[in-house]
Amino acid sequence: MAEKITRREDDYSQWYLDIVNRAGLAENSDVRGCMVIKPHGYAIWEKMQRALDRMFKDTGHVNAYFPLFIPKSFFAKEEEMAEGFAKECAVVTHYRLKSVPGKGVIVDPEAQLEEPLIIRPTSETIIWNTYRTWIQSYRDLPLLINQWANVVRWEMRTRLFLRTAEFLWQEGHTAHATQSEAEEETRRMLDVYRTFAEEWMAMPVLCGRKSEGQKFPGAVYTLCIEALMQDRKALQSGTSHFLGQNFAKAFDVKFQNQVGQLEHAWATSWGVSTRLIGALIMSHSDDQGLVLPPRLAPIHVVIVPIFRKPEEREATIGAANRLAEALRGLPPTDWLGYEPLAVKVDDRDQHQPGFKFNEWELRGVPMRIELGPKDLAQNACVLARRDVPGKAAKEMGVPLANAPARIVEVLKQMQQDLLERARKFRAENSCEVNSWDEFKKKIEVPGGFLWAHWDGTRATEDRIAAETKATIRCIPFDRQKEAGQCILTGQPSEGRVVFAKAY
Amino acid sequence: MAEKITRREDDYSQWYLDIVNRAGLAENSDVRGCMVIKPHGYAIWEKMQRALDRMFKDTGHVNAYFPLFIPKSFFAKEEEMAEGFAKECAVVTHYRLKSVPGKGVIVDPEAQLEEPLIIRPTSETIIWNTYRTWIQSYRDLPLLINQWANVVRWEMRTRLFLRTAEFLWQEGHTAHATQSEAEEETRRMLDVYRTFAEEWMAMPVLCGRKSEGQKFPGAVYTLCIEALMQDRKALQSGTSHFLGQNFAKAFDVKFQNQVGQLEHAWATSWGVSTRLIGALIMSHSDDQGLVLPPRLAPIHVVIVPIFRKPEEREATIGAANRLAEALRGLPPTDWLGYEPLAVKVDDRDQHQPGFKFNEWELRGVPMRIELGPKDLAQNACVLARRDVPGKAAKEMGVPLANAPARIVEVLKQMQQDLLERARKFRAENSCEVNSWDEFKKKIEVPGGFLWAHWDGTRATEDRIAAETKATIRCIPFDRQKEAGQCILTGQPSEGRVVFAKAY
Repeated sequence: MAEKITRREDDYSQWYLDIVNRAGLAENSDVRGCMVIKPHGYAIWEKMQRALDRMFKDTGHVNAYFPLFIPKSFFAKEEEMAEGFAKECAVVTHYRLKSVPGKGVIVDPEAQLEEPLIIRPTSETIIWNTYRTWIQSYRDLPLLINQWANVVRWEMRTRLFLRTAEFLWQEGHTAHATQSEAEEETRRMLDVYRTFAEEWMAMPVLCGRKSEGQKFPGAVYTLCIEALMQDRKALQSGTSHFLGQNFAKAFDVKFQNQVGQLEHAWATSWGVSTRLIGALIMSHSDDQGLVLPPRLAPIHVVIVPIFRKPEEREATIGAANRLAEALRGLPPTDWLGYEPLAVKVDDRDQHQPGFKFNEWELRGVPMRIELGPKDLAQNACVLARRDVPGKAAKEMGVPLANAPARIVEVLKQMQQDLLERARKFRAENSCEVNSWDEFKKKIEVPGGFLWAHWDGTRATEDRIAAETKATIRCIPFDRQKEAGQCILTGQPSEGRVVFAKAY
Repeated sequence: MAEKITRREDDYSQWYLDIVNRAGLAENSDVRGCMVIKPHGYAIWEKMQRALDRMFKDTGHVNAYFPLFIPKSFFAKEEEMAEGFAKECAVVTHYRLKSVPGKGVIVDPEAQLEEPLIIRPTSETIIWNTYRTWIQSYRDLPLLINQWANVVRWEMRTRLFLRTAEFLWQEGHTAHATQSEAEEETRRMLDVYRTFAEEWMAMPVLCGRKSEGQKFPGAVYTLCIEALMQDRKALQSGTSHFLGQNFAKAFDVKFQNQVGQLEHAWATSWGVSTRLIGALIMSHSDDQGLVLPPRLAPIHVVIVPIFRKPEEREATIGAANRLAEALRGLPPTDWLGYEPLAVKVDDRDQHQPGFKFNEWELRGVPMRIELGPKDLAQNACVLARRDVPGKAAKEMGVPLANAPARIVEVLKQMQQDLLERARKFRAENSCEVNSWDEFKKKIEVPGGFLWAHWDGTRATEDRIAAETKATIRCIPFDRQKEAGQCILTGQPSEGRVVFAKAY
């Protein structure tokens, strides 16, 4: 049997990398900072895309595609943004190679671009430059567009899925006739992200507003969903930005309103990325490997026929295939995104059942069915759910005729239990903190979400970050009004904000 | 009413651009050679992706994602390929911008990459560099992987969808233990493309092998599907390459075979791109605008309620919405990719029915339903199919109760008729040519596919192209064996090949 993966308590970072690697999710490429998303990892991304895309369309959005390249001059038009992204831009300067005897293939110095092109780190500039011709009248609004794309940010320290130079994401870019409509959209899309995180990823999230120090460069304000990972560090999992008229002004996007006056359009943008796969891994997985919520699992059920003799082989594989067909034939439901149950029969001869069990556990298949000669003699099978450790995972003697219904029931239960377990973990690792000394201790041990008063200034936020590496994750929408004093400065505060160390 | 589009016979190129523009499919961006794919165009691409992706998965393939960047040194490892793509490479040389007072934002000269990175024009090199660690044993084969991605080829003359610097595509990259398996795969995937072209795009294609002059740089041979556009020019619509062991040798990808020896793996690659949208437009559209085969139409049916008085408005819109619901509620079928019928009710008050009819015709909606007070009085409606010109398009007095079944029937008929019509057009514009003089005349007028004998040499192929701009589109699989003489040199030939001017 293959080597076990590192245990979380021994080395959390290595545990994460072991899962990414051994479950076949991704690997580092030979291109600095860029990852290869392997088939199993990409299949999870496809499930995420399918579910999110449906939610975007259900809220009135359509997809489009804008260029990978952004002229340097566009980039410089919105100052805050240029400032925010300038240090991590990949820049195309030439458009041709040539062969030179003795030197091989070189960049042709005569093929230099007049204006360098930036690989998009995000597409506000190129999109708002395009919107200038699309938006003339209030009748053209709202414009509700999303793009699925790759983006590049030249990160110096990378970690698979969580921070890579190139990553995949979606970016919504909407234009509205009024401030209030744009602000509603900003909030609506954050709510779509919250729903997706909770109902599909089984990952509870805090929803709120970013402080000035953490907002998107170019935004008036940024809303976010924040999740807590098993090492008690926070992970920003999605953001929705109210951009005001900043980009409309930078790119001169005006429309005629209902009374014939010209106004600048109001903007939002919002995105989630392949980073969510990292969040998913760290929310649920254990020391046996990946744990996936059923709604995002590329394979829902693996059936392992157990046999020694040739006649047992035939009988158990036959029964496994019949059960698989029954499962695949269940009517598609909204719950699984209208896709049939994905069922695998592992009938490989060269491996023992124990090996197979470990492999599918490692890869995060939610449900395992065991089918041996003794089970078959009783027309029954054994169900084993991935999220429960040890023997409690098993349900023995499930009649084959009832198995499909029971399997669907358990998958639904599992989806719910994963969310509840993650909620419980977050509750156990959140606390209120009322003094600077307490803050400094608790941010180290146990970590987690610390709810504390803050005076609302950027200076204090920066000092806290400099001293403890903790950042304000968000100013939660649902926080209570509570007069208090800033833990660092003692200045007055209207309510607690949430601090944590973060990825 | 808006201006009409250019007629094909007046200016075919302008007709094409008018449709792309006025149907809202795409536009040129301010980045040289790059297009913006607008929502309606992107929705067609999504339908194409969905259908192709299912066909790839049904033939055992899985998706993955590889980096956008290719180190210059990788690129140079396969010589033919480096030669073939060197002249159209976008090259990243720097990774940072900086602000300089008085000069604005500049490329930071201190942030130069040690090794330039090429934006992928195709991914064989980066993928085979990765496969080196994935392939150790015959048990790891076949490796059947596809990628959906953007690629960049620095084209000097661009045309929307047909030739742009950046485009979207899928690229399959498979590895096999034997030559014959790889050759079977090459052919299998061409057949997938043929099936997609004919059954989804309603576009007949010739299937065959490319001549040496037209093959993919780095391939042992290239198979292709070739379609004929309405201006009698050919469009290469998909290619499938047998790469032999070229990339395995360049990137040292070896596996242990069943008897323990090390061998280089055998490779294929195959791709289709957003160019197919151009092919779709030019296969079916007419002087009224876009014509889409129902299986790839983002909106299948538009219902236009016709009213003057307020009470008519309420009644016709009500009936339109009920019919729309009935259509949307039809059970999803394989035929439409398991998606419900997409139905739009155009209840806008500010436009007249005639305006609406023209608009939806321009945008290529396959079926229009007209519903006025007189129809309603008879519990009936009028069906109008997009592919038939003039009054023959209309079917009057279709009872509302029967309408859903009848609409599905007509949509299926339309899909079939479009293919038949395109087949007929191709037959009418294909001919055998037996002399050089005849060839030179007919390649100009009427154009189309010319079946002619060729001596099989690169030199002759190049001379024919230089003199007539016609190229060998393919050596068809199903050509008859027929002894003949090369139209240019009189040298012996075993069978005819297909020449055409091409996009």
